[in-house]
Amino acid sequence: MGKNKDEFVKEITNIEDDIAQWYTDIVRKADLADYTEVKGFVTIKPYGYAIWENVQKYADEKFKETGVENVYFPILIPENLLEKEKDHVEGFAPEVAWVETAGSNKLEERLCIRPTSETIISTMYSKWLNSWRDLPMVYNQWCNVIRWEKETRPFLRSREFLWQEGHTIHETEEEARNRTLQMLDIYDDLTQNLLAIPTIKGRKTPKEQFAGAEETYTIETMMYDGKALQSATSHYFGQNFSKPFEIKFQNREGKEEYAYQTSWGLSTRLIGAIIMAHGDNRGLKLPPKVAPIQVVIVPIAQHKEGVLDKANEVFAELKKNFRVKVDDRDNYSPGYKFNDWEMRGVPVRVELGPRDIANGVCVVSRRDTGDKQEVKLTELSDTIEELLVDIHNNMYAECEKRLKERTTVAHTLEEFEKQINEKQGFIKTMWCGDVACEDKIKELTAAKSRCMPFEQENLGETCVCCGKKAYRMVVWGRQY
Amino acid sequence: MGKNKDEFVKEITNIEDDIAQWYTDIVRKADLADYTEVKGFVTIKPYGYAIWENVQKYADEKFKETGVENVYFPILIPENLLEKEKDHVEGFAPEVAWVETAGSNKLEERLCIRPTSETIISTMYSKWLNSWRDLPMVYNQWCNVIRWEKETRPFLRSREFLWQEGHTIHETEEEARNRTLQMLDIYDDLTQNLLAIPTIKGRKTPKEQFAGAEETYTIETMMYDGKALQSATSHYFGQNFSKPFEIKFQNREGKEEYAYQTSWGLSTRLIGAIIMAHGDNRGLKLPPKVAPIQVVIVPIAQHKEGVLDKANEVFAELKKNFRVKVDDRDNYSPGYKFNDWEMRGVPVRVELGPRDIANGVCVVSRRDTGDKQEVKLTELSDTIEELLVDIHNNMYAECEKRLKERTTVAHTLEEFEKQINEKQGFIKTMWCGDVACEDKIKELTAAKSRCMPFEQENLGETCVCCGKKAYRMVVWGRQY
Repeated sequence: MGKNKDEFVKEITNIEDDIAQWYTDIVRKADLADYTEVKGFVTIKPYGYAIWENVQKYADEKFKETGVENVYFPILIPENLLEKEKDHVEGFAPEVAWVETAGSNKLEERLCIRPTSETIISTMYSKWLNSWRDLPMVYNQWCNVIRWEKETRPFLRSREFLWQEGHTIHETEEEARNRTLQMLDIYDDLTQNLLAIPTIKGRKTPKEQFAGAEETYTIETMMYDGKALQSATSHYFGQNFSKPFEIKFQNREGKEEYAYQTSWGLSTRLIGAIIMAHGDNRGLKLPPKVAPIQVVIVPIAQHKEGVLDKANEVFAELKKNFRVKVDDRDNYSPGYKFNDWEMRGVPVRVELGPRDIANGVCVVSRRDTGDKQEVKLTELSDTIEELLVDIHNNMYAECEKRLKERTTVAHTLEEFEKQINEKQGFIKTMWCGDVACEDKIKELTAAKSRCMPFEQENLGETCVCCGKKAYRMVVWGRQY
Repeated sequence: MGKNKDEFVKEITNIEDDIAQWYTDIVRKADLADYTEVKGFVTIKPYGYAIWENVQKYADEKFKETGVENVYFPILIPENLLEKEKDHVEGFAPEVAWVETAGSNKLEERLCIRPTSETIISTMYSKWLNSWRDLPMVYNQWCNVIRWEKETRPFLRSREFLWQEGHTIHETEEEARNRTLQMLDIYDDLTQNLLAIPTIKGRKTPKEQFAGAEETYTIETMMYDGKALQSATSHYFGQNFSKPFEIKFQNREGKEEYAYQTSWGLSTRLIGAIIMAHGDNRGLKLPPKVAPIQVVIVPIAQHKEGVLDKANEVFAELKKNFRVKVDDRDNYSPGYKFNDWEMRGVPVRVELGPRDIANGVCVVSRRDTGDKQEVKLTELSDTIEELLVDIHNNMYAECEKRLKERTTVAHTLEEFEKQINEKQGFIKTMWCGDVACEDKIKELTAAKSRCMPFEQENLGETCVCCGKKAYRMVVWGRQY
């Protein structure tokens, strides 16, 4: 028989005691993923993968509305291609896995498993591009990549992860810059409207840019413990790749010109963001729009005549509008099931017992607040529709409240240190633009610059670190 | 300006002269894929990838209707896992790519890039399975795999390809066998109803089985030149993997038992099947249901007032029901565009000029027969709907006619040789069940056993090769 509520909940580490262990518990006990025997490589289980499919579907539709076309480039990249752009190879070479043998044959040139595909895609663009009439090329691929990270954590930092990488080339700088920001806006919309997580949108400092980019733009989010997660990025390359890779075209004046390029990506890391932004001591808490199961129906006294029939009838009705499941397992108690689905973060639970059925009602609970209400079966579908919207908004508001409460302004390094140690979160400061100040802040506080937000505020005239003339307002934070 | 019809067509090699070169021409000129600098690795371009997306969507929906759940397992498999099932490692080790270095570190154990995932998935199943209540597990992943083949050809035999691999474990042999055939039926349906290619459904001879399988089932199709293509396979493993990998459970009697297992897959090879089964000397010919563009609108005299407006109006109307495109390129003539879209295999073309517009009509051509008809604009959508169905049926019928004409019966090896050399195609014979006869036939004729079809015929009592007592009717053919 099922365990009682308290026993069950004890299996998850308290989030305030040890958030890292809490995270691992959720990943495994909510059946999102499991470890394999190779460090840093996880298996994404059906419940976790279904979240990813919902992210994919949402993003892919938005991409295609803007003219993105999907493609597939090889996973193996010859070493000579990786080396063509100096910053890029420096950034990625320490993390790439190399194939040197196939079958029993040593390869003539070793091939790396893509850590990202700028080099192979630039090579092909160079081959395909002739005239301004061929532009733009706005391609994207959904695929796996490998980066041999030292510290790993399921979803947040895996040696293999799934992502989409968009790569575009354009006739003009302006068009490429617009595309960079257009895709950032899609990521921003997705993070807020699908995942119910508020964002800070801005530009990375040069130190934190993608290896080879001229500018990197980012969507930054705050997790449960006040740490930052970089949720998606969009890069403007200018001609940094098009020159070494010779991506040239005849422009409208008949002259040879190098194309302007972008790339942009989001990954299965977003599943980690969902866990860390919304979860609590009862487990996972899924935003309704991305939840694989939006409504779970738990029959009470399901052995009694008519209960399962009615549950299935309600299921058939709700299935028209929602992702819904009946939990008719006969070897667990309703109490166990309640806890189980709470732990898995299902937004709405419907309880249905013999007395409810006789009265034409059911009990509806929401995962975010725990509130329960009795609802007429005839009004159930409408009620759930409203509830899901309300749950999304409430989850977003909770995160927004935290983001506000844990974002503070610092004018001096002493304030900075004190604030980040007392109330781990984001610190807003003015900054001179010098990487030395970033390095010093990181050394002192373990915080990195998250971005120079688009929404700049004037917090003073001088850099928080060196006191020299300020260049921009920066948001800082410790990161996942 | 555009080239005339004849000039244009000359760019594609004649299919009767050199089908291999014709195939390569189509792949490149119809913009399906392009070669990279690493042999056997191609880039799938937007037009080719869009075909794959249509295959994926169709298959994924059918899978999910039967309870399949999608997952993702790591691409890298430790050598010790690959070696656990004897036949499996013998079959795949000669073709796998090995990762031995990551960054600048030599790995303790080398990892292979998955050629298929039975071994890693079996390892995880063994970890997850406890009781009969956990069964079945019916998982599938859409991913890339690498097999270092010697001879390569885009789509048909690439060193990297995209596929889905389903892997299931079951409580009983019967359930696993049913799942094996259930998935084969989905592949059969997909090949016929999506790709418009008739099939032969049957069981592989033991010699042609998947490495490690107890039984392999296959969907065999015939290409333009009478050669065979194995289009999808479904394997019953029995306990071949569950024993070495210890995939055990407590059965309903409380006893420990090994699970019964299946796997099944289809791949981007199907894009090759579409090209080779349907194409002709005018280029690609796409089955309507899988075509990325079902209808192309070519405006005539598009510089004249109102023509492009009307074309866009017709586009907006057709877009409600079809995948449609307006070709408004101003640097090509209508004649060039006609040829271009024929070469790309678009099933229906709509021509629309000033005189048509004045009369409220347009000219509709079909790619499969070349037939043209004048259609009232008010009836265009209905006409196209009927046409697409008719084109699908006609394309299927063409392939079926070829399959019938090029399938012959042989009672002796002499007949077999004569028939396959005169009229390359499928040969039906009785067979004793002995691998020695398969080897001999292959040596003499370069034909392999395709399968023992489910629809058996009694063609006599003795084996075509050795004259001993016949076991089954086999279909033979040369293969891609």
